[in-house]
Amino acid sequence: MHEMTKQNLLAAYAGESQAHMRYLIFSDVAEKEGKKNVARLFKAIAYAEQVHATNHYRNLGEVNTTSDNLQTCIDGEHFEVNEMYPAYMAVAQLQDEKAANMGFHGALEAEKIHEIMYGDAKMVVDKGEDIEIGKIYICSICGYTTTNEAPEKCPICGATKDRFVEF
Amino acid sequence: MHEMTKQNLLAAYAGESQAHMRYLIFSDVAEKEGKKNVARLFKAIAYAEQVHATNHYRNLGEVNTTSDNLQTCIDGEHFEVNEMYPAYMAVAQLQDEKAANMGFHGALEAEKIHEIMYGDAKMVVDKGEDIEIGKIYICSICGYTTTNEAPEKCPICGATKDRFVEF
Ligand SMILES: [Fe+2]
Ligand SMILES: [Fe+2]
Ligand SMILES: [Fe+2]
Ligand SMILES: [Fe+2]
Ligand SMILES: [Fe+2]
Ligand SMILES: [Fe+2]
Repeated sequence: MHEMTKQNLLAAYAGESQAHMRYLIFSDVAEKEGKKNVARLFKAIAYAEQVHATNHYRNLGEVNTTSDNLQTCIDGEHFEVNEMYPAYMAVAQLQDEKAANMGFHGALEAEKIHEIMYGDAKMVVDKGEDIEIGKIYICSICGYTTTNEAPEKCPICGATKDRFVEF
Repeated sequence: MHEMTKQNLLAAYAGESQAHMRYLIFSDVAEKEGKKNVARLFKAIAYAEQVHATNHYRNLGEVNTTSDNLQTCIDGEHFEVNEMYPAYMAVAQLQDEKAANMGFHGALEAEKIHEIMYGDAKMVVDKGEDIEIGKIYICSICGYTTTNEAPEKCPICGATKDRFVEF
């Protein structure tokens, strides 16, 4: 593929992924304002942007087997844990930006767990099998990730058990 | 907010949004490979990244009222329709990148409709009301967006009615 088209696909993937996310966030706001149909419109269009992002990503040739995809995930999480979030936290602390620092911290703690979970999954997938795993619980406040049962209190942000989403 | 922390929040929002999207894509691949638990793990962690992205976006102070949020959407769609996708398509055509060009074209056509729908919604929301709108249908192949009923054939990509997702 030509380099300029590749750059444009990467930029379009980034733009569509962020639009998708923004519309999900805006949908929640509309829901809280009692505007149920506007909330539904945001959700629908968020899905359209997901289709666009997926098409651009496929055209980049970045969708491989699950084994290769898991390696992509491990590499991404590893970078966030070992470089990205520690760097962002150092700057937030230097600048006394407490809210930003807390958000970065919550993410960093979750990414550590993600890197391990993806690594464990890859070992099993590389034997040609599916993983065995119980229910997965995600803290809706900070993204903390755990299995089998949600904790009474989130160890990272202190949110109560009912704030966890089950997968 | 300090400029460097702001830049880091923007970068973290971009990174988390793209990780969220990647994990949704990888979840579909795992599902097709028959690895249901890996697919579920990808979905769960995609949600954790959504929580992170949402926190970073809130910390940027970018979440406003639905009226303001709709203006953000209109501006974004307008840019994609009038500058971004036409520019990407010009380069893809110059470089004879057919798949990329088709993806950009499908997105461009959907964004035109999104800009209008968000504009219509804003007029109603600015009167303090919710919009009146029937079911919304999105083409799962190209993102084409329409209301009330899915077409027999997608006017943009030719996909059949059963490929539309209802909201
Ligand atoms: Fe789009
Ligand atoms: Fe992660
Ligand atoms: Fe938490
Ligand atoms: Fe994350
Ligand atoms: Fe759009
Ligand atoms: Fe279509």
